[in-house]
This record gives sequence, C-alpha cells and structure tokens, in this order.
Amino acid sequence: MKKFIDNPATLLETSLQGFAKAHADIVELHTEPNFVCRKQRKKGRVALISGGGSGHEPLHAGFVGYGMLDAACPGQIFTSPTPDQMLAAAEAVDGGAGVLFIVKNYAGDVMNFEMAAEMLVGPNASVLVNDDVSLPKDHPIGRRGVAGTVIVEKIVGAAAEQGYDLAACKSLGDRVVGATASMGIALSSCTVPALGRPTFEIAEDEIEIGVGIHGERGRETGKLVTASEMVEQIAGHIQEELNPGAGQAVLLHVNGFGATPLVELHLVYELAWQYWQKRGLNIQRALVGSFTTSLDMAGCSLTLTLLDEEMLRLWDAPVNTAALRWGC
Amino acid sequence: MKKFIDNPATLLETSLQGFAKAHADIVELHTEPNFVCRKQRKKGRVALISGGGSGHEPLHAGFVGYGMLDAACPGQIFTSPTPDQMLAAAEAVDGGAGVLFIVKNYAGDVMNFEMAAEMLVGPNASVLVNDDVSLPKDHPIGRRGVAGTVIVEKIVGAAAEQGYDLAACKSLGDRVVGATASMGIALSSCTVPALGRPTFEIAEDEIEIGVGIHGERGRETGKLVTASEMVEQIAGHIQEELNPGAGQAVLLHVNGFGATPLVELHLVYELAWQYWQKRGLNIQRALVGSFTTSLDMAGCSLTLTLLDEEMLRLWDAPVNTAALRWGC
Repeated sequence: MKKFIDNPATLLETSLQGFAKAHADIVELHTEPNFVCRKQRKKGRVALISGGGSGHEPLHAGFVGYGMLDAACPGQIFTSPTPDQMLAAAEAVDGGAGVLFIVKNYAGDVMNFEMAAEMLVGPNASVLVNDDVSLPKDHPIGRRGVAGTVIVEKIVGAAAEQGYDLAACKSLGDRVVGATASMGIALSSCTVPALGRPTFEIAEDEIEIGVGIHGERGRETGKLVTASEMVEQIAGHIQEELNPGAGQAVLLHVNGFGATPLVELHLVYELAWQYWQKRGLNIQRALVGSFTTSLDMAGCSLTLTLLDEEMLRLWDAPVNTAALRWGC
Repeated sequence: MKKFIDNPATLLETSLQGFAKAHADIVELHTEPNFVCRKQRKKGRVALISGGGSGHEPLHAGFVGYGMLDAACPGQIFTSPTPDQMLAAAEAVDGGAGVLFIVKNYAGDVMNFEMAAEMLVGPNASVLVNDDVSLPKDHPIGRRGVAGTVIVEKIVGAAAEQGYDLAACKSLGDRVVGATASMGIALSSCTVPALGRPTFEIAEDEIEIGVGIHGERGRETGKLVTASEMVEQIAGHIQEELNPGAGQAVLLHVNGFGATPLVELHLVYELAWQYWQKRGLNIQRALVGSFTTSLDMAGCSLTLTLLDEEMLRLWDAPVNTAALRWGC
C-alpha cells in the first residue's frame, strides 16, 4: 500500500486536524465524539447535519459552512458514524428550529442516524439520499446514496439559510432526491488503509460499471472502451430513470472518485453535455470535480438533477464551505 | 492505459470544450490558436497571462478570472504552448496597461514566452517561477517552476486587479517567487496519453523524492517511509532554503499531483503544520488540494511562502476563478 500515512489507526484523526486547521475560518473540529461544525452559527434556522464513513472527502466536512451543512459526522474510513456523534453535533448546532439529517442510503448510516433521531429531544427529520440508479428500484435495501448527495446538501442548505422551516426543508430535500439520478464507472479499485490492498482485482482491459463509493465491484464488469462509449452507457441509465422532457432545465454533475484528473473529468463533462444536448435538455448548471470520492479509486460518475426555478435559485444562492464556494 | 479518453489526439480539445462550458460564467475559450480568457474584461489594468503544457489542471486555465489571470495558454499535454497562442491571448486581454507573463521555468516555456514577448507590440514583462528546491540553485537550466506558481498568480493577480502598474506587478511577482520554495514526492508515475504507459517504473516499496510535474523521476529514489518521515524530508529542504526567522508569517500549501485523495493531503498538511509550528513559524494561511497536477500521478508537494503584510492582503483579496474562489 502506497499512501501518505503513518498509521491506519490514526489517519482519520490526523487528517481531520489538518482539515480543521486549513479551514479554521469556516469550521471547528470537535473530538470525542468527532464532528465538524460551522464556526459561525445563527439561531432560529433549521440545522442541517450529514455524515457517513470517511474516505469520500470533501464529502461531508468539506460542505460545512454558510449556505450548506451546519455539521458533519465523519465515521472511520467507509464506516458509519455512531449515534453519539450525531447527537453531539445536533446539540452543538441546533438553533431552535429543528434538525434535518441528510443520510446516504447505507444500512449502517440509516440505522445509526435513525437511532440518533429517536434519542434527540426536539423536532427533527431526515432526508434519505438514494440516487444511484445502477441498482434496481426494488433492490432489497434500496438504492445507494452517492454523488447526488452534494446537490441535496447545497439546495437544502440554501433553503435553511433562507429561513425555510423544518417541514419545508424536508419536503424540498425529498423533491431534490426524486429529481436526481447518478451512475458511476470505476477504472481501478481503491485501497482501504486498514486492509492494505485493493478491495477488488481488475484487469488492465476491464472496467466496473455501476459502482458505489466504497470500493465495491459494480453491477457488471465490462471491457475498457472509449470515454464516449462509457458516457453513453451510464448516461443512458440516468436518462431512462428520469425521462426528462425536451427543454427540461438540468444540473449536470461529473464527479471524480479520487484519482481521476480534471483533464479527464472535463472531457467526460463535454461528452455528457453532448449526450443530453442531443436529447433536447437545457443544461443550465455544471459541477465538475472530485466531490464524492472513494479514496484513491480511478473513475467517475454522472449525476443529473432536474431543476425547477426554486431549485435553481437555491443552487445559485451564496455558499461558503471548504469545497464549494460562490457568491460570498 | 486506463483513462476516460477517446483519442489522445483530441483529448485536450474536448477537455477544454468541457471546461469552458462548465465555467461559462467566468471564461471564454478561443481556438486556433487555443487560449482561455476572462469573459468580463476591464480596460486600464495590467493583464496577466500564463500558460504551459496541459496535464497540470486546474493550472492554468482554472485560475483565469477576477483577481487572478486574464488568460491562459494551454499547450498539448506536457508540451509548451506556442508563441502564437500567447500573442493571440495578449491581443485579446491587453487593456492598455501592459501584459505580464507568468512563466514556469522550463526551457520550452521560457523560449516560447520570450519569443512572444519580443513579437508583442506594447509594454510587457515576465515573471519566471522557479520554486522547486529539489534542484540546486546553480542547476544549468535553473530550478523548475512548480506548485508555487499558483501563489504567484494569486498575489500578483490581486495586485493587477487593484491597479498596480506593470513595473509594480513584475517586481511583486519576483518578490513572491523569491519568498517561495516547493518540493514534492511521487508515489507513482503518471501516464501521458500519447505514450500510453507510465513514464517511469517504480517498485511497490519505492518513492521518488524531489520530482517535477512532468512525470520525470525525482532527484533520488527512496524507500517508502511514513508520511511523517516524507514530510520531514521535503520540509527540511524548504526550511534550509528559506531559512525563515521565528514568528515569520507564512502561507503553507499542500498540493496533490492528481491521484492523491484529500484525506491524505490533509494529513500531510497537519504534519507539515506541526513541523513548522515547532520551528516557530506563524502559519497564517493554508491551501490544500490538487492545484498543480501531473496527470494521474500519486504524490504531493509542500510549498512555503514567506508573507509580508502586502502579500497577505493580496492573498486575501477577492478571487473568482474555476478553481480558486473567495470573497466574491
């Protein structure tokens, strides 16, 4: 295993310390239990909390700040955070208008966030993100939450900042989830530090189609083809799922899994843009970069969100976090 | 070679199209010859132009925008741009107060930017960036320009925005270069698309110490050690070079080479922070992320800039580019 690491057991803690120092103008790190929250907090608005296993950076701590999350609870690498983290975070950031949890659909995350929600005194609700269309809709544990999570956190974060109440934030979050679909392709596995070797083997001429973000294999192994063919393939599944009408306004997000350079991600964006432009969509907003990663996996995903005017306005609203920043 | 790519011959062009579409609010792409410039231009200020081989994204096109570059000239992957690109860019963005070229010290870049400067009608000057301390000061072609380039472009970009004249921008740029030192370590090689295989072989227990950003070997091959030992090693060379006094204000930049995840970069930041904190430095600003990359190379570099009050104020000034954005 080749990584910048001293010891898998202390990687997360040291990395969080570095993150908090590098962004000390925006966030505060609390330990025992671990959570990252905004430095400046405001009373009277709904507080947004997310979290999940680490290894997906900048998700979620990189999205804590004005106009997005109030706190993030990082678990160990690819491991759910525990309910005490969520409770401590909720206690720190609850401004009296309730807490909204944004949860990616993984069994451990769902269970622990549910437990926290039950223990929490005071109004709270949860939005479950399940945007990964590589699994069938009727999959026994449901579809996974992947790169669409960022879109949900941005749009609902802006709403909370603007004073939407808890019910309105929850309902908006559900609406964004319903309007969002993602699918990814991996060119390589990733190496979980505690394991010390790639989580799966893949040949030089193979790709994994329909991967999640935890180094698991995809729904199928395919042959390495051109970027255009890869884009056609995953865009096709998203298109089929959302079935957008001609002229539909959309946000197109190309997300790198951690080891794919920007020069490739922008190429993929161009190809995906052409794919949907041909189908008459109105591609109004773009997000290209590595936002929901899977450690050092090479690969990327496409996410499409069907935008209405409210969602577009909230997407454009000011945001000031470590990883997403505009308008302020 | 496993990449999102259709054809090495069209990769750059397609990627630039995607980049320009994804950031159409900030930049415009011109072709034949290729350059990226700001969408909104203002007369009467010094225009900053940089450029170099592609494969280092987001450098340089990702830094075109308010408060930073006016234009960037991307060459083919790891290949210098040609003088006609720089001339066309200069013609497009010259606002009547002269043009400042920011050039990384590579033979081809230097030669072509010099040629452009000679052909350009109107006042112009150049700042040569040579922050890589892995080569000796008296190296025959001088030290390479690496991740410190971003610091130069940001600080001088803010000065140009604030109305500094050409001589003042040039002198400030030289001062930032003199106050900046970088050194990097690679854990892997990178694969240039036209070549189709890694540019060097490296064993599972080896690292390259003192690498540039073009997939060349480092000044020495070492054994894989802990992140702390790697940081000590490269930070030591930087410390020796700059020899900062106790209490010196600095900006500490950890730059990923393209395939190193943020969780590792933040760990490296924490270790480098500890290294310089122990030596009494006042670490006032941080920049952590993959800003000057080497395609899909795994690795990172440290850059330290000794800040004075003017440089700090200019670093903090508003910037609105694809890859660096704050205060606006």
